[in-house]
Amino acid sequence: MIRFWCISLLFFPVFTQAQTYSSADSALIRSIYDEVLSHGEAHENLRVLTKTIGHRLSGSPQAFQAMRWGTELLERYGADTVFTMPVVVPSWTRGDVATAIAYMSDGRVIPLHITALGESVGTPNDEAIRCKIIIVKKLSDLELLDSELTEGRIVLFNRAMDPMQINTGSAYGGAYDQRGHGATASAKVGARGALVRSLTHSLDTLPHTGAMSYADDVEKIPAAAISTVDARMLAKLYKEDPDLEIELTMNCTVLPDVEQGNIIGEWTGSEFPHEIITIGGHLDSWDIGEGAHDDGAGIVHTIEVLRLLKAVGYTPKRTIRFVLFINEENGNRGGITYAGIAAEELERGENVYVAAMESDAGGFSPRGFNIDATDTLSELFKSWQPLFEPYNLYHFKNGWTGVDIRPLKDLDHRPMLLGLVPEGQRYFDYHHSANDVFETVHKRELELGAATMASMIMLIDKYIPSPNLETEND
Amino acid sequence: MIRFWCISLLFFPVFTQAQTYSSADSALIRSIYDEVLSHGEAHENLRVLTKTIGHRLSGSPQAFQAMRWGTELLERYGADTVFTMPVVVPSWTRGDVATAIAYMSDGRVIPLHITALGESVGTPNDEAIRCKIIIVKKLSDLELLDSELTEGRIVLFNRAMDPMQINTGSAYGGAYDQRGHGATASAKVGARGALVRSLTHSLDTLPHTGAMSYADDVEKIPAAAISTVDARMLAKLYKEDPDLEIELTMNCTVLPDVEQGNIIGEWTGSEFPHEIITIGGHLDSWDIGEGAHDDGAGIVHTIEVLRLLKAVGYTPKRTIRFVLFINEENGNRGGITYAGIAAEELERGENVYVAAMESDAGGFSPRGFNIDATDTLSELFKSWQPLFEPYNLYHFKNGWTGVDIRPLKDLDHRPMLLGLVPEGQRYFDYHHSANDVFETVHKRELELGAATMASMIMLIDKYIPSPNLETEND
Repeated sequence: MIRFWCISLLFFPVFTQAQTYSSADSALIRSIYDEVLSHGEAHENLRVLTKTIGHRLSGSPQAFQAMRWGTELLERYGADTVFTMPVVVPSWTRGDVATAIAYMSDGRVIPLHITALGESVGTPNDEAIRCKIIIVKKLSDLELLDSELTEGRIVLFNRAMDPMQINTGSAYGGAYDQRGHGATASAKVGARGALVRSLTHSLDTLPHTGAMSYADDVEKIPAAAISTVDARMLAKLYKEDPDLEIELTMNCTVLPDVEQGNIIGEWTGSEFPHEIITIGGHLDSWDIGEGAHDDGAGIVHTIEVLRLLKAVGYTPKRTIRFVLFINEENGNRGGITYAGIAAEELERGENVYVAAMESDAGGFSPRGFNIDATDTLSELFKSWQPLFEPYNLYHFKNGWTGVDIRPLKDLDHRPMLLGLVPEGQRYFDYHHSANDVFETVHKRELELGAATMASMIMLIDKYIPSPNLETEND
Repeated sequence: MIRFWCISLLFFPVFTQAQTYSSADSALIRSIYDEVLSHGEAHENLRVLTKTIGHRLSGSPQAFQAMRWGTELLERYGADTVFTMPVVVPSWTRGDVATAIAYMSDGRVIPLHITALGESVGTPNDEAIRCKIIIVKKLSDLELLDSELTEGRIVLFNRAMDPMQINTGSAYGGAYDQRGHGATASAKVGARGALVRSLTHSLDTLPHTGAMSYADDVEKIPAAAISTVDARMLAKLYKEDPDLEIELTMNCTVLPDVEQGNIIGEWTGSEFPHEIITIGGHLDSWDIGEGAHDDGAGIVHTIEVLRLLKAVGYTPKRTIRFVLFINEENGNRGGITYAGIAAEELERGENVYVAAMESDAGGFSPRGFNIDATDTLSELFKSWQPLFEPYNLYHFKNGWTGVDIRPLKDLDHRPMLLGLVPEGQRYFDYHHSANDVFETVHKRELELGAATMASMIMLIDKYIPSPNLETEND
């Protein structure tokens, strides 16, 4: 018996009022936390992912390895089916050279700590370019400058993440345009390259990479992240010596696309198998460090939720999909592909995606969730907060939920989207850098995140109302 | 004009109802956080304390150095007066030998990671003792054993901290008796020494020291902490080979008492100078590691509160005392002395101690405060919570506040006691071990703690009602 929904109803879904929770739920949640704190496997799984595979940029051999590892683990933990959803991903290689050297008018030669931004082109013919620099804090500052101060130069974008923001993710968002669009803004004013102050509050000598892209109508010029310490030093040197020059050499390259995929473990629902709850993180990572917090943590969280719910004997009413998304870092093709298929399944009346949860903010001590949903569903979600207070979780707010699940928001019936919110002060110290390694992830903190997600998935499965869609049976 | 209170009223204090807060307070609190996040000095101060002085056990030369450092810093930040409150403290030295070696019946020789517990005696004449062992999980288990299983042996107390407790401090409290009283319990059944599984959730090879004491009526036998990894291994080896022997050598020694002191910076109140608000941490630390989280963090928190309140132009109504307590770790003579003097001042009608706050739970991201006060004051305190939600602070609960300020609770008028509650999952990984070093303290996390304390001190100063004590003027 398969259910079909009238297509017209896809545009008028209604979630009906539901019971918010029962007294038995707090005991079940306690058993989930007990299980993770006494027999948690997420930390050991993260060790294997980070130490035996390592970083795993989309398109790389390590990403293929990680796909196999994830498939095996989901099978071992008892998913009913595990499959690969094919996704064609971009491929880019950092190469083996990324150097920047400052030459001062007085003869001093100062090497700088840089690394290529993801998707950047290399320097022409992989050969050094040497030119003067100009330093700005905002993209729009470039347009105000006389062309002789920009043409043929390398632009340093040196706006720090705002330290006064308590939420480090917001501070990151406020400085992101330099990395994402700095090269395009620089090319428009005739510059030959762009250096971007690393997006971190930490004052250190590590460059933090990340995605950038070029507008279609500009020349592609090389772009690199420079460490915060070097950016600060360069700004000081430039004040003393505006004629200083930088020699930049990078041999990164865009390679042909590769077919990889989202790894999906499915646990079939006992009552509403065509209502899909998605939980995931992203399997790909940047190609420096080990992608431990970003997003190894989210991957082992996701897999541990399956193990935990099985361990406490839970039987889901809905179908839960454990999704290891590919290509979050430089394209989000995994998330876009997944939502596209969800839309097709919905249109065909096969499945309706009722909720999705992502962990992509690190493996630190959990503080709660952000939600992006209708008011009705947001209220239901917030009504569960008392169940989480014994675990020091108080953050149940509207907010950003995750790159991979964001495309699902555009489904006509608007599923409930949730993002795990961990403690965030240290996250950008590690993010996209060589420091994002297993040793910085704390076992109990990571485990508490997995139990928090499992508990919330259980509540969603039990209590989220079914979309009020007409059905006919065949 | 000095105020005197009728002595009789000391036993009938009443706090009257007060306004809970004004809209201007949220702006002032915002300016405190802005100041710390843009110009915070706590982290640099902690670097100086931990890296130029290092650990600073009561009675040690380093503790004297830390007292001078604290005095200078409180003066530099503008305390009206800075003075030393003399405190006679115990002195104990770890010596330079603490070894334990397991000798297996099959000839294997296995060195173990141990360190002496604070205040322990050494082995007799600093010479090795070698004997069989017995392993128990509870102190009371010893009394149930046949005497041949205990007499002349070394007892290993091997009860782990309960991993299922979310609050790591509670798990610590639940395992503490082994360290505090294990030697006494062992001596009572004729044992020659005690080894105590380190009080940490972390599975590693570091011994974690800490205070112990002997009952008056037992022989003083040597007691040491053993790493969690070694304790677990030893339990396994003992199952295979109950005749294994341990050779224990320790040359730690109790030395004569030393006069050191609490360092107190006083900022005189503009309106009620005889009402004292105390804020503090403890300057002493254990003699391994650097005492960075325990309690260097609390010390630089305390000092930074003075700097912050001055920086935002605050004028306190009450007198605020910034107290760097001595001897929290092994005797609490600093806290006891301070409360004793407070009681005398109260009796003489000189000063009334209305509130006290301690930071002694690490330099991690703050989550709120524990309170120990009358219901009326607790309600007032909890009414301020909305002011702290923008800073992700939600923990405003009754609970443990701190060893140093605890003796103030016994004052007849019962001051409001508060303890900063930081994120706690990592604390016992470092606590009392060689890993408690500066590098594990995060700048922004530490700074947020200082701003949180400063904001709460401001609210207490502004809004806590004066004790309703009769006054006469002379």
